[in-house]
Amino acid sequence: MERLLNWWEKSSQSASPLHFVDIVLRGIGQVMFQNNPLSGLLFLTAVCWGSFAAGVPQVAIGGLLGVVVATVTAQSLNVDEEALGAGLYGYNAYLVGIALPTFLATSPLLWFYLVLGAIVSVIVTLGTAKVMTTWGVAALTAPFILVTWLLLLSAYAFSGIHGDALPASGQIVPIPAEAANPLAIADFVDGILVSISQVFVKGNGIAALLILIGLAAGSLAAAGLALAAAMISIIIAHALGAESQLITAGLVGFNPILTAIALGSVFYRPGSRAIAYALLATIVTVVFQGAMVSALTPFGIPTLTASFVLVTWLFLLPGQKLD
Amino acid sequence: MERLLNWWEKSSQSASPLHFVDIVLRGIGQVMFQNNPLSGLLFLTAVCWGSFAAGVPQVAIGGLLGVVVATVTAQSLNVDEEALGAGLYGYNAYLVGIALPTFLATSPLLWFYLVLGAIVSVIVTLGTAKVMTTWGVAALTAPFILVTWLLLLSAYAFSGIHGDALPASGQIVPIPAEAANPLAIADFVDGILVSISQVFVKGNGIAALLILIGLAAGSLAAAGLALAAAMISIIIAHALGAESQLITAGLVGFNPILTAIALGSVFYRPGSRAIAYALLATIVTVVFQGAMVSALTPFGIPTLTASFVLVTWLFLLPGQKLD
Amino acid sequence: MERLLNWWEKSSQSASPLHFVDIVLRGIGQVMFQNNPLSGLLFLTAVCWGSFAAGVPQVAIGGLLGVVVATVTAQSLNVDEEALGAGLYGYNAYLVGIALPTFLATSPLLWFYLVLGAIVSVIVTLGTAKVMTTWGVAALTAPFILVTWLLLLSAYAFSGIHGDALPASGQIVPIPAEAANPLAIADFVDGILVSISQVFVKGNGIAALLILIGLAAGSLAAAGLALAAAMISIIIAHALGAESQLITAGLVGFNPILTAIALGSVFYRPGSRAIAYALLATIVTVVFQGAMVSALTPFGIPTLTASFVLVTWLFLLPGQKLD
Repeated sequence: MERLLNWWEKSSQSASPLHFVDIVLRGIGQVMFQNNPLSGLLFLTAVCWGSFAAGVPQVAIGGLLGVVVATVTAQSLNVDEEALGAGLYGYNAYLVGIALPTFLATSPLLWFYLVLGAIVSVIVTLGTAKVMTTWGVAALTAPFILVTWLLLLSAYAFSGIHGDALPASGQIVPIPAEAANPLAIADFVDGILVSISQVFVKGNGIAALLILIGLAAGSLAAAGLALAAAMISIIIAHALGAESQLITAGLVGFNPILTAIALGSVFYRPGSRAIAYALLATIVTVVFQGAMVSALTPFGIPTLTASFVLVTWLFLLPGQKLD
Repeated sequence: MERLLNWWEKSSQSASPLHFVDIVLRGIGQVMFQNNPLSGLLFLTAVCWGSFAAGVPQVAIGGLLGVVVATVTAQSLNVDEEALGAGLYGYNAYLVGIALPTFLATSPLLWFYLVLGAIVSVIVTLGTAKVMTTWGVAALTAPFILVTWLLLLSAYAFSGIHGDALPASGQIVPIPAEAANPLAIADFVDGILVSISQVFVKGNGIAALLILIGLAAGSLAAAGLALAAAMISIIIAHALGAESQLITAGLVGFNPILTAIALGSVFYRPGSRAIAYALLATIVTVVFQGAMVSALTPFGIPTLTASFVLVTWLFLLPGQKLD
Repeated sequence: MERLLNWWEKSSQSASPLHFVDIVLRGIGQVMFQNNPLSGLLFLTAVCWGSFAAGVPQVAIGGLLGVVVATVTAQSLNVDEEALGAGLYGYNAYLVGIALPTFLATSPLLWFYLVLGAIVSVIVTLGTAKVMTTWGVAALTAPFILVTWLLLLSAYAFSGIHGDALPASGQIVPIPAEAANPLAIADFVDGILVSISQVFVKGNGIAALLILIGLAAGSLAAAGLALAAAMISIIIAHALGAESQLITAGLVGFNPILTAIALGSVFYRPGSRAIAYALLATIVTVVFQGAMVSALTPFGIPTLTASFVLVTWLFLLPGQKLD
């Protein structure tokens, strides 16, 4: 394995097409903070599996198209070479590329939207990074969220774009008590797995296992944190009385997973204080994810990774030293 | 009085439990910008009185729990010692602690929310201060607003938390003309008093008097500005045709009061130019408070002190010298 | 012409009342980035023509009152003399002054609102400039948008202010397919012209021609970009299936026009790379304008120039060098 990666590193440095593939794969890996082409390849495989299994190949194709367009765009602008090589201008576009075909009906205009969104995601990434650097904080997936929200909102205004799978806009009402059922053990295990795959906007157990392996290939700590966060968030959400359907569909777990990986293994070195801080943030993400669902109800758009970005920014801003 | 405060200062410096009490009281005092344990004690008494009189002791208890939890949290993080001693990590949590039991039904999960909110308020205070310091502006009660809004919004998503006293989410419609009745003199005086107590989320005349005394104990100018702002905001709101019920319940006055104290006595030294600037901001707060009520109608959450924070930030950002 | 402007420059420097008129006219010119009294005079004439033709003289009067009040306000505060002389504290108030009488019914309180809004626009301009300077970006018309949105929102809360022409607050629903009709050539040409006049919140062909001449007087490139952007945005909007009525009323074109002028002629020198960048931003503005319409539907307020400000900020933040 080690040897394989070394061989790849050497080959991809020398040959320009391989170098491009390397950037694209690292871009996909960066969705879960893995600057690593093998993680990216496994995540890509997971998304392909999940999207073909669900009969929506346009999702897998859209993701790949997004990250390719973004990488070409970044190469044509003045960007930091190191950040480019690490895939940091690609992961937002990869997510834009899988999100748009998930929520919008397939049509020629969808692909126009997807290419436009991928290009703009690079510009928004540069801008977000510039603003957040002021306080020593990373852009995370904020560019993905902003671009996707705006494109989805605009779909309501144009008859050429159909928001087939968008949540309906409406009043915020408390969920009924009967929507929060006791969880069977099978649902519980299922919920953990699909929470992991929902990071890539798909609920699929096999995809989740591929993603876990991809995470472990990059960082064992990240894989462990992902599993722990999925488990904790499902327990907390269930205790609070979240909608059971959301829990088993993995829709309450994917944001806390990202928070846990970010705070527990990326921005802090794993340690008892860092783990406690990440645990607190993970629980807060579960609660604020509920808040995001309510806050977006009038707008008829999905939360995406907004609660992860919000909580991780809030917990990074103080610049606490936790070693 | 002077001697009493001196004795307290000496005692609270030497003994650690008294020092903790001192920080907690200053935290409560900071809700209205008074870095002063006596003001804090009077505000605390006012909230206890108001909440026991209204048969909701959980509000008084919640506030105290919030500020205690926040103070312990701040002590366990790397924070500025001087800011900690001045109660600057406590006032947001005190408000979170009285707001949550005001809007949510009592239950074990409410107390979980309250403790979580108090802890997070410290982290958000650190982050907000870091961001706003860039432009020389204070965090004010923005951390309280952000944390409380998110927790209240999330209540709609969890069947274990009931938002008993939340405004209903819905469309924004103009208030009917008959909702703006002429004010009787008694209502007018009442409106002034309860506006002052609504800073602590309670409408109660005796509580208001205790708060006024507490303000005067810290700063006579602040007490005078509070009274004047309450009066002005009620007149302006009435002239604009605000809902009479909101006026007499003190719900249009508490934000302008905070604006007036902040700009007229805290961030500027009282003087003719500063008073004119604060007066303008006070009137703008009345109008923007109306805007906040409309803006939050789709979300089903209360405005809290949002118009105060917005206007005070807008008026502090230019960094005008008004001496 | 040249000689006339030279004579004016000399006269307005020496005589104080003429200097004031010069600042006011430049303030009006800055709505479309023209630091030029002649452009301002032509824009003013256009707005007068459009508003008298439509039987709403209060719009023309409101704009003039707004910019005059703002100029006096700025003179009484500590502001940058050069920025003051260039009209940079006036253009937001001019827009506030024409927007409020457009959306609110005429009444004594409307004029109170207008004067208050004009004064506050100066304070918000100072604050916005301070914040955005951190990242080397201009305030654009953000102060106009913020102040006008808040004043319009507050109209719902006060029975003394009537929002006669405000869009209704409600749920976001996809526009029906039949709302996007094929455009007749006459509608197409009409749409281009009124898009230009909608920058000043009025749809009127003759006003549009006066504005175009005013633009050309300041910068031929700006006039060319305005025409091109209007044409492109109407084609793109039509291809996406935007509501035909919005297109022919000029309501999808005025934001892209401002984006094109800003990026193509103000913040970048015209050149092939800058033009390509501005073209991309122009198309994005068309799409995000659709998003803003949806996003504001729950709030019952118009988009104003929000998509222009959002997109231009996003495209300026990266600080790309495009020469």
